[in-house]
Amino acid sequence: MSDTPHTPLLDQVRIPSDLKRLGDADLPQLARELRAETIAAVSETGGHLGAGLGVVELTVALHHVFDAPRDKIVWDVSHQTYPHKILTGRRDRIRTLRQKDGLSGFTKRSESPYDPFGAAHSSTSISAALGFAVARDLGGACDTGHGDAIAVIGDGAMSAGMAFEALNNAGHLQKRLIVILNDNEMSIAPPVGAMSAYLSRLYAGAPFQDFKAAAKGAISMLPPPFQEGARRAKDVLKGMAVGGTLFEELGFSYVGPIDGHDLDQLLPVLRTVKARATGPMLIHVLTKKGKGYAPAESARDGGHATAKFDLVTGKQKKTPSNAPSYTRVFADALLAEAADDPRICAITAAMPDGTGLDLFAERYPSRCFDVGIAEQHAVTFSAGLAAGGMRPFCALYSTFLQRGYDQVVHDVAIQRLPVRFAIDRAGLVGADGATHAGAFDIAYLANLPGFVVMAAADEAELKHMVATAARHDSGPIAFRYPRGEGTGVEMPERGTPLEIGRGRIVQDGADVSILSFGTRLSEVMTACEALRARGITPTVADARFAKPLDEALILDLVARHDAMITIEEGAIGGFGSHVSHLLAEAGVFDAGFRFRSMVLPDIFIDQASPADMYATAKLSAADIEARVLALMGLGQVDKRA
Amino acid sequence: MSDTPHTPLLDQVRIPSDLKRLGDADLPQLARELRAETIAAVSETGGHLGAGLGVVELTVALHHVFDAPRDKIVWDVSHQTYPHKILTGRRDRIRTLRQKDGLSGFTKRSESPYDPFGAAHSSTSISAALGFAVARDLGGACDTGHGDAIAVIGDGAMSAGMAFEALNNAGHLQKRLIVILNDNEMSIAPPVGAMSAYLSRLYAGAPFQDFKAAAKGAISMLPPPFQEGARRAKDVLKGMAVGGTLFEELGFSYVGPIDGHDLDQLLPVLRTVKARATGPMLIHVLTKKGKGYAPAESARDGGHATAKFDLVTGKQKKTPSNAPSYTRVFADALLAEAADDPRICAITAAMPDGTGLDLFAERYPSRCFDVGIAEQHAVTFSAGLAAGGMRPFCALYSTFLQRGYDQVVHDVAIQRLPVRFAIDRAGLVGADGATHAGAFDIAYLANLPGFVVMAAADEAELKHMVATAARHDSGPIAFRYPRGEGTGVEMPERGTPLEIGRGRIVQDGADVSILSFGTRLSEVMTACEALRARGITPTVADARFAKPLDEALILDLVARHDAMITIEEGAIGGFGSHVSHLLAEAGVFDAGFRFRSMVLPDIFIDQASPADMYATAKLSAADIEARVLALMGLGQVDKRA
Repeated sequence: MSDTPHTPLLDQVRIPSDLKRLGDADLPQLARELRAETIAAVSETGGHLGAGLGVVELTVALHHVFDAPRDKIVWDVSHQTYPHKILTGRRDRIRTLRQKDGLSGFTKRSESPYDPFGAAHSSTSISAALGFAVARDLGGACDTGHGDAIAVIGDGAMSAGMAFEALNNAGHLQKRLIVILNDNEMSIAPPVGAMSAYLSRLYAGAPFQDFKAAAKGAISMLPPPFQEGARRAKDVLKGMAVGGTLFEELGFSYVGPIDGHDLDQLLPVLRTVKARATGPMLIHVLTKKGKGYAPAESARDGGHATAKFDLVTGKQKKTPSNAPSYTRVFADALLAEAADDPRICAITAAMPDGTGLDLFAERYPSRCFDVGIAEQHAVTFSAGLAAGGMRPFCALYSTFLQRGYDQVVHDVAIQRLPVRFAIDRAGLVGADGATHAGAFDIAYLANLPGFVVMAAADEAELKHMVATAARHDSGPIAFRYPRGEGTGVEMPERGTPLEIGRGRIVQDGADVSILSFGTRLSEVMTACEALRARGITPTVADARFAKPLDEALILDLVARHDAMITIEEGAIGGFGSHVSHLLAEAGVFDAGFRFRSMVLPDIFIDQASPADMYATAKLSAADIEARVLALMGLGQVDKRA
Repeated sequence: MSDTPHTPLLDQVRIPSDLKRLGDADLPQLARELRAETIAAVSETGGHLGAGLGVVELTVALHHVFDAPRDKIVWDVSHQTYPHKILTGRRDRIRTLRQKDGLSGFTKRSESPYDPFGAAHSSTSISAALGFAVARDLGGACDTGHGDAIAVIGDGAMSAGMAFEALNNAGHLQKRLIVILNDNEMSIAPPVGAMSAYLSRLYAGAPFQDFKAAAKGAISMLPPPFQEGARRAKDVLKGMAVGGTLFEELGFSYVGPIDGHDLDQLLPVLRTVKARATGPMLIHVLTKKGKGYAPAESARDGGHATAKFDLVTGKQKKTPSNAPSYTRVFADALLAEAADDPRICAITAAMPDGTGLDLFAERYPSRCFDVGIAEQHAVTFSAGLAAGGMRPFCALYSTFLQRGYDQVVHDVAIQRLPVRFAIDRAGLVGADGATHAGAFDIAYLANLPGFVVMAAADEAELKHMVATAARHDSGPIAFRYPRGEGTGVEMPERGTPLEIGRGRIVQDGADVSILSFGTRLSEVMTACEALRARGITPTVADARFAKPLDEALILDLVARHDAMITIEEGAIGGFGSHVSHLLAEAGVFDAGFRFRSMVLPDIFIDQASPADMYATAKLSAADIEARVLALMGLGQVDKRA
């Protein structure tokens, strides 16, 4: 499909110890080959391209200087680790990236001993690396031994409070710990926040030169072989203001900024730090996202994530879609509401594109807030906006909302503040795998007193739910919707507010009722088509609300049928559990009632196509059909899977 | 009971507008009276004393200079607001603090328009205040109008990442916003972390003098009436190093440090800031926790929280207890395990005393980590320690673990790392009210694949669970236990590891089985005694595990009885939901089975005595008895409450 690049040096490197046999002079060529191989692989698989291209030289330098897996290299987020995977025994599988049974798009402990700590969410690396450093000093037994603990973290990830918490603790403990700040002025979106501005000031007006890095922190630590270079650096730096005080105030030694694409800077600095560091060190490295591949370098997001693409043109090979994405429907619906209502504002945590709020920011810049990777703040800032009379829509992915859970409970729910939570990527997400699945939000929101929790069955429903949320001022309200394209239903011009706590009958039938919450409804309807061939027509209802439940609808379904199946794209404890509780309390089970609840299974599901994932989860049309037949005594016995 | 202090000035002040009629010269006397009244009130009610005494002058100054409720004063944590409550129309109820139907021990929107944002958990104030500031500038309609947004936050709260996220965003937005850093070198425990050391350096070697505060940031802004003072300050400061760069790097103007007990410093600085601030301002105020009351000042924790006490001696009036607290049992059990096992280490987030880990820190200082108010980091740091071969016990209150939920999912559960979560204050907590209740942990942990979730039925069980967790290396494990004293059961010398996923029969009976998860077991037994008088003996089982469920035990109970009641001190979605799901899938309901699940109700329960709270929650022995009778058709009809 794509050209396999010519990689004579890379072909000699299977694992980092092979790399160590190469001389410094070979490394730039190795880096070029590694970059070419990364681009070629991602052109076939799709995935996160820009971040990996930005750290090719850094990856080579780290593996040349340090001794993985004894030294623990903890990559933050870890979508930048395709080059690392190629150098650590996984090149033969690199074209299986993000595919079922293939390599994960992130680091993963179970995949390789060279991945000491898995990631996918941002800003965890310093905490984890500090854990390794402390475990080492306490004599903890680690399969791969204990060496240095190294966190590689982007400037975007530094805006998260968690990274600050870890710096604060590491600065206090003063253990030997190496933090590499990979500063590409970009998380996924262009950077926001005062920290980002601060980092820019560290090198503004003082573009790095040869060995500028060795200044200050590093010079005094340089071992003899590098003293000449150090003297040069000292000359260059004479009279230059060198920054990093913020990190120094937090107890770190600061070195930098250095050019992260220049191995002549990276290697001596890393060697110096390795030889001499005692306490926590921060090395500030400047890189360019998408480096070395023109189409990525010139993209606004540095080629953050890509579909399969043509190597020469960079043109992405996307299947044309028939329906708009849920994300886009949400964005358009919110714009329509905001046009009439100046109180509506929008909050995103570093995901303006992913949530569709880039459109909102363009149209209403003063009402759109990208707070950076800072979900805790995003939620409570939204609560403050609500208390101040605004109608905030806080748009987050389901899995990232977990970051602000206490704030949802403490600042929003307990105070009954009307924050609107737009929960994108709810349910299974495909190639991003288990770390990005939105599995728990129904359970962790629907048991909060006073919350309204909705799920959209299709993109038209989503539009109605945006309208519903816009007008709901009496307390918090959330609506969840999945990754990907809508079902292609006819779209209303504007959303119509739904009655809170009211579901709808989608199809009237007999014997069995299927009560669906969210987007599994289309699979339910597919199952019903298959059942019709057997003369079976279940009643199908769309619950719309997990909270408050439509008790009248549910009890009416119970009265008119012998059995009920609930289905949702969420873990146990959510919609089905609330329905089951209602039925138990109402005495429905006392006299016998066949009730089953289809939920996500009790496993973390690895990356695969959505269809494969639903099959694994047993939430596909075929599974629904089988469950109906079993409940009616027509299929195989309905046994616990 | 206690003396009512003589308070002629305070008697004239019902709300802040009364206070504004007093001259500056009267305010020190008012502050003295306010301090005396605060001490007298807390001597009768118990509660958080030290923090309030530390901000008496600040509270007076804020209400003299600013215009609440139009100006929004957002108190972080808000356990320091008893003086604020006295000055804002609540003095007549101040002796109802923390009692049922009385004043909350924290700020509360529904209690007063002078509480624009409720709190209880730490580090939320800057986010909330920024929300008010932005809502104001966007023209949001607020019942009390819009003025200044002021966050008052302690130095301990500054260690939380959330505060950093808010500073980072506020520094970027450059809205007019006032942050008062109340630096008493103490959160609850003595301070930890590099940030705390940094704050100390800001005034170390330069003790504040008259108007030192007015230096730098403030001098240039001083309006004419204060210029003389400013000139004096300038003289004093000549040649002094003035700090605050960390905040300045984040986009804030910094003023301070100033003496927070000296109204001659507080008033002009606040007036200057009010008159001149344009963007975000940070005012660094030094205070002493427990100020003005010798027994509190001299306490290690500054008189953080207290029972009722004798005004003269400061001696607390505690009822002698018959059984050790769960917290103490946990601490002792962990010490016993740690004595044999050098891999055991302990992590707390600024609660060494509250979690009992102060004892661990004393005995094993190198293995105990107080990371500050930083739950996200605490969890992932623990995960790193586990990956590095240690056996970390991460001890948090249930409600604070919510702060690290994503880290529990992403860093611990997905990686199956053997972090041990010791979850204190699980269930209802009494006087601290809804914000501190541990209601959701069962639901949000038990649906995580690979997790083991236990609850201790009594203090001996807790000891066994500590031993169980210590030896469980195959994945994450959590055990929850409540606030307060144990039940007085006989204690084993050492804990015995439990078999994972095995419950126990406590009492064999007939007709109805009661399956208890956690500490409601003692109420179940009380209910059984009452039932015995009627000739009814239910079977009682202690599930011990919400995950994995003891399916054999549960299905055996089903087979041998006509009905089952589950009971837990947690919200819907937890233990009862898992049992219900099991029964549904096993077809138990198909032929009829009376099943009920007793959980915390769908309301946030305000502060009260534990007994009152359990009555409100309908989880007392009487409620259990009534439910059994109803299920057997012997009581009133079992209707949904």
